[in-house]
Amino acid sequence: MRIGIVGYGSVGKALHRLIYERAWEFKNKYGLVLQVVFVCDRSGCFYKDNGINPPETLNVKDAGKPLSSIFKVEPVLETIKKGLVDVAVECTPANFINAEPAFTHIMEALKSGSNVITTNKGPMALYMPTILEEAESRGLVVLYSGTVGGGTPFIYFADNALKGNRIISFRGILNGTSNFVLSKVINEGSSIEDAISEAKRLGIAEADPTLDLNGTDSAAKLVILLNHVFEDKYTLKDIEISGIEKGIPKVDFNHTVKLIASSTPRPRVSLEVISKDDLLNIDGTYNAVEFTVEELGSVYLIGKGAGGRETAGAVMRDLVELKNRLQIQYFRKSYSRML
Amino acid sequence: MRIGIVGYGSVGKALHRLIYERAWEFKNKYGLVLQVVFVCDRSGCFYKDNGINPPETLNVKDAGKPLSSIFKVEPVLETIKKGLVDVAVECTPANFINAEPAFTHIMEALKSGSNVITTNKGPMALYMPTILEEAESRGLVVLYSGTVGGGTPFIYFADNALKGNRIISFRGILNGTSNFVLSKVINEGSSIEDAISEAKRLGIAEADPTLDLNGTDSAAKLVILLNHVFEDKYTLKDIEISGIEKGIPKVDFNHTVKLIASSTPRPRVSLEVISKDDLLNIDGTYNAVEFTVEELGSVYLIGKGAGGRETAGAVMRDLVELKNRLQIQYFRKSYSRML
Repeated sequence: MRIGIVGYGSVGKALHRLIYERAWEFKNKYGLVLQVVFVCDRSGCFYKDNGINPPETLNVKDAGKPLSSIFKVEPVLETIKKGLVDVAVECTPANFINAEPAFTHIMEALKSGSNVITTNKGPMALYMPTILEEAESRGLVVLYSGTVGGGTPFIYFADNALKGNRIISFRGILNGTSNFVLSKVINEGSSIEDAISEAKRLGIAEADPTLDLNGTDSAAKLVILLNHVFEDKYTLKDIEISGIEKGIPKVDFNHTVKLIASSTPRPRVSLEVISKDDLLNIDGTYNAVEFTVEELGSVYLIGKGAGGRETAGAVMRDLVELKNRLQIQYFRKSYSRML
Repeated sequence: MRIGIVGYGSVGKALHRLIYERAWEFKNKYGLVLQVVFVCDRSGCFYKDNGINPPETLNVKDAGKPLSSIFKVEPVLETIKKGLVDVAVECTPANFINAEPAFTHIMEALKSGSNVITTNKGPMALYMPTILEEAESRGLVVLYSGTVGGGTPFIYFADNALKGNRIISFRGILNGTSNFVLSKVINEGSSIEDAISEAKRLGIAEADPTLDLNGTDSAAKLVILLNHVFEDKYTLKDIEISGIEKGIPKVDFNHTVKLIASSTPRPRVSLEVISKDDLLNIDGTYNAVEFTVEELGSVYLIGKGAGGRETAGAVMRDLVELKNRLQIQYFRKSYSRML
């Protein structure tokens, strides 16, 4: 499987490493030969037809230099449009204003005949229905396990692990930064400002954590999970969003406050006072989702919600899923052609 | 898909109901036409070639009567051996001495050409390698999602949701009855005897909860998860088992005691003192497993570990998985035949 990595930051680099480390295992366990033939950063794409070994390009990036400083690169869109790969992996940073440049990357990859894996929430939060329709009309696959929960497989849990069961609703903590801040404020009496400073100091919060704290990031993940679980066509503007910017309610010793994304009664993200006995009372940077399943009652999935290597781990799952989907397509096509 | 239900207690009856309720959904969503053509209790099997509607047989059972009191039945093994179904669902009660009669049911079903779904842990705990080899040699499928965690999909989580990731180890609470008793003793200062009495009163513990309390039931589930996750060939005798029968250690306010099944350093079930901050500190009848995944760190799955309808829900997952497996087999076979 020929792979192009678009976005060569913490996720893209970790993915390149993981693909290299797991090459043998993927070939033997899944019959999947993985080959990274291009990597792109802001400076452009470096393409090598017989595959790029991670040390070649990682050393450059780890030294803080752009790919163009050493390699002959061409503009990102130009490379994508050539349709050189079986799958383009979009892992540039999210942008919730217009989802660019990722949205164009994804659409052009599909138009060129490449399947797409994205860890970038932006295009999915703003244009998921459009993207999936484009892929479907071309018989291509778009996978996005890494957009929700970093490495924790909320998407495949809802789908592959609960296939045959009926999910009625879900609610959960989908942002680790805001959960860390809330935990600090509620449990230790920190001010919001001090908690944010500490989160930045520990590398948990980005320089500007506004989208984490005001609920936008959680809402983006809610959109993706809603559409995935219920085959809906939500986009970010359909979600009622509030965050911790308006202050945090005071609670007694038996209660706590969490920033909860809920599918019902209407899709929304808001601060909720919950009982300390609620299994969503998870502190720190964890993400946690309670799925209410008609036959099973409540099922909880909890794990780390971010991290380069973790999110790259999600892409590894998508690669196996892609292979299975393509194989079924192939069998179907071959079979019908021969009849 | 023609189905035979062997064992018509809480799981078997709930399954018959669920299949009936979901017929339309399964046909439309999964292309799967489900038809129950025989049901068996201790008195024998009632077979009806064009399908049995639940009210016919459930009314009899709900009135506390055996199938033979109303229907013409034949001995269970005789029906199984006829190979009348695509899948035989084994849901008789577990027995950890010799796993009978379930082990013979499963082996005879395979020999007759039927695939098998089992919710019965006994045969899998004692003979899982034998059963899977028998199935494989015949090109048949054995699925067992309901043997671990009741309805909570630990098996498919480890498999389908984490496919492409590398699970290093796991540890967890796999028995709800003993967890309820431990919670009562540690948190409320009950005596073990009082806690057991209350569990019986609430219908959480069976009349004889010995196998739940001494760790055997947890160890059976550990065997199944180990073999599933690591493609190992453990059986119950390979597990080091201790339970709460030797007393429960005293702990301070920051710690608690749980009956933990661990894959490492060696497979064992034992009482462990854990921190109250450990996410496995879940009270009541929940089951909870922490999977340590190389790329992701710790991922926790928590849900109810028992119940007739919940376990029947696991069988519904197995039916979808079976269909997918058979479809791939079918494509492969058709394709190679036509070349």
